[in-house]
Amino acid sequence: MTHDLLPRELALKGLDGKTIILVVLDGLGGLPHPDTGKTELESASIPNLDTLAAHSSLGMICPVAEGVTPGSGPGHLSLFGYDPITSIVGRGILSALGVGFELCPGDVAARLNLATVDDKGVVIDRRAGRPSDQEGRRLVDKIVGQISPPDGVEAMFIHEKEHRMALVLRGEGLDAGILDTDPQKIGLKPLPVIAADSASTSTVNIVQDLLGQIGDILTDEPSANSVLARGFAKFSSYWSFEERYGLRAVALAKYPMYRGIARLVGMTAEGVPSSNDETVGLLEDCYGGYDFYFLHFKDPDSMGHDGDFDGKVKAIEAVDAILPRITSLNPDVLIVTGDHSTPAIYREHSWHHVPVLIASQWTRPSADKFSETSCRGGDLGVFYGKNLMSLALAHAVRLDKYGA
Amino acid sequence: MTHDLLPRELALKGLDGKTIILVVLDGLGGLPHPDTGKTELESASIPNLDTLAAHSSLGMICPVAEGVTPGSGPGHLSLFGYDPITSIVGRGILSALGVGFELCPGDVAARLNLATVDDKGVVIDRRAGRPSDQEGRRLVDKIVGQISPPDGVEAMFIHEKEHRMALVLRGEGLDAGILDTDPQKIGLKPLPVIAADSASTSTVNIVQDLLGQIGDILTDEPSANSVLARGFAKFSSYWSFEERYGLRAVALAKYPMYRGIARLVGMTAEGVPSSNDETVGLLEDCYGGYDFYFLHFKDPDSMGHDGDFDGKVKAIEAVDAILPRITSLNPDVLIVTGDHSTPAIYREHSWHHVPVLIASQWTRPSADKFSETSCRGGDLGVFYGKNLMSLALAHAVRLDKYGA
Repeated sequence: MTHDLLPRELALKGLDGKTIILVVLDGLGGLPHPDTGKTELESASIPNLDTLAAHSSLGMICPVAEGVTPGSGPGHLSLFGYDPITSIVGRGILSALGVGFELCPGDVAARLNLATVDDKGVVIDRRAGRPSDQEGRRLVDKIVGQISPPDGVEAMFIHEKEHRMALVLRGEGLDAGILDTDPQKIGLKPLPVIAADSASTSTVNIVQDLLGQIGDILTDEPSANSVLARGFAKFSSYWSFEERYGLRAVALAKYPMYRGIARLVGMTAEGVPSSNDETVGLLEDCYGGYDFYFLHFKDPDSMGHDGDFDGKVKAIEAVDAILPRITSLNPDVLIVTGDHSTPAIYREHSWHHVPVLIASQWTRPSADKFSETSCRGGDLGVFYGKNLMSLALAHAVRLDKYGA
Repeated sequence: MTHDLLPRELALKGLDGKTIILVVLDGLGGLPHPDTGKTELESASIPNLDTLAAHSSLGMICPVAEGVTPGSGPGHLSLFGYDPITSIVGRGILSALGVGFELCPGDVAARLNLATVDDKGVVIDRRAGRPSDQEGRRLVDKIVGQISPPDGVEAMFIHEKEHRMALVLRGEGLDAGILDTDPQKIGLKPLPVIAADSASTSTVNIVQDLLGQIGDILTDEPSANSVLARGFAKFSSYWSFEERYGLRAVALAKYPMYRGIARLVGMTAEGVPSSNDETVGLLEDCYGGYDFYFLHFKDPDSMGHDGDFDGKVKAIEAVDAILPRITSLNPDVLIVTGDHSTPAIYREHSWHHVPVLIASQWTRPSADKFSETSCRGGDLGVFYGKNLMSLALAHAVRLDKYGA
């Protein structure tokens, strides 16, 4: 099944205030600890999630496809019901979204990394000695203060973190078929700016001009005297949540990346919470104003990347602890899942299925535990992430019968 | 979802000697014995497979599609990651591969059956009284000795078994849109050679000429005085394992059919083992020379076709007995499954799902038993056979993240 069914073939109904909350624990899925045979989720003390599971339909989400490890973009687009293969988001767009930059349709974005080249122009450090955030900001400000973009184009440089920044070009007729200039290893010169298609030749000229100017601006810097570009991508809006599902949707997320992905599909990003507590506080504040609430909790993924098994356990327990504030709002549908697995023993995103629970009045409970083990035996089976939204709508009784 | 993801969108990585072994027990899946309620696999004593299962992710493979019973071609192509519906292999190609004939791109192959017609040309035995292999070979040799193919075409006749042979045509401009001449029942004349498309009209003329000559050559034979043709198919090479997955692959299989299917996707077929023992011996000999090893064990399928439940149990136990020689090689990924089910009580290939285990460092074990029952509760769920290869690559950490 593809999502083309929605809503072209499947009529929406019941737009009468039925409310859906989607709680995403980033990187939720795990792998067993070698000593205990239990995953992070199975090792956590999560009485509230377990109680919720006992009233939920359980299942396992395959985020993109068997064996495929998703990045954050595909992982979330999939949960939002957008085919992550046809709706792929480029690195440059994610970089801009990640710093909260509000892209317009037609913008072309790229990731730029400050780098060090020697006097022959050969890259000797692809990260310019990893400058501090403050130093990185100073360098970006220096570029912004001196650069002079070609006529008819706006060029925006936004510092991300350390040596990383986003470049956003805005103007008529831009395109993003441009190859990376990052040679990916030291000892080589930056690659020339080359068009991958004929539609992008004029944009290539603009990028060549800008990168040349940046080289001049940074020429006296002891370390960050060059930039490497990658992930050119053009921003186009998606069919929005409201157009597609009839849902007014809001995103409550601490990190700009996730607010940005939510905005891609037309969600409102409400506030900038600085903690789990504030995330749920924002939910309480805006509850009733929307039909769909997306809450994002980053810590399980971060701990997974750090290889910190116990830290990931605690990060899951922390979300469990505030769950009663969410359930007490009595949403019609409450979904808890992750965008992908980040097993602490693997230290990276992985391809493994992600546990999911859907709580509503219309479930088939099968276990009083929320875990990989209970979810793999759940009523929903294994399903592709892109199909979660039709299950969400169904459990909210917001989808009409298909066919007579 | 299709495998077009691989490798166009999914970058391969880690081409650093990570090793994958795929062990196929042909016809592995079974149905419960009426007396015990246990399948062949569940009745077998397989301590080594059970131990392996306890460290593996388990699941069920749907070889082609729900309810679809695969032949050997689609069953294996699917395991190799090729869509068995778009990559369908014709009967004629399988016949030629089955006798170890090395096809070239552009060859057109068909299955020919020796048959008996009466003096009015009506088929009275579609198998010519099932001649012995020796008698079948004599008749094929007689045809080969006297036939005179049209200019510009090579016509090769290869005896398979009893009344069956393969015809391979080689030359410029051949095509395979040709309908079967086998009327499928006695009392009818052989059907005329008819083109199903305009590209095949010249090949039809060649086939008409050859079948006419064969009729003349065999006219005095008391029983095998005609042939019936079916399954015309054109051979084209597949995108190879190495191009597609970056894997240098080898096939170790006793039967030519399976070496042939493996060669279709660019595997090397190493040696001609005459037993399970020799198959594993070849693995030990060539281990380290490839990235991917395909081992094929035929006996479970043969016993299933014979309706020999206990024989199939023993055939599975025989593979279990040599498993330690495989596991002691310490491959990074070891997969054990079948290409389809051949339940002994059904005596044919069937559509039922096939148990699969994937052993690696990155698994979610769920049972200490390898069986239909344990696998249906496994972490991998039910998945299409064509997706096995991306799981294999993922478990070998040979696939990059998808999207940023």
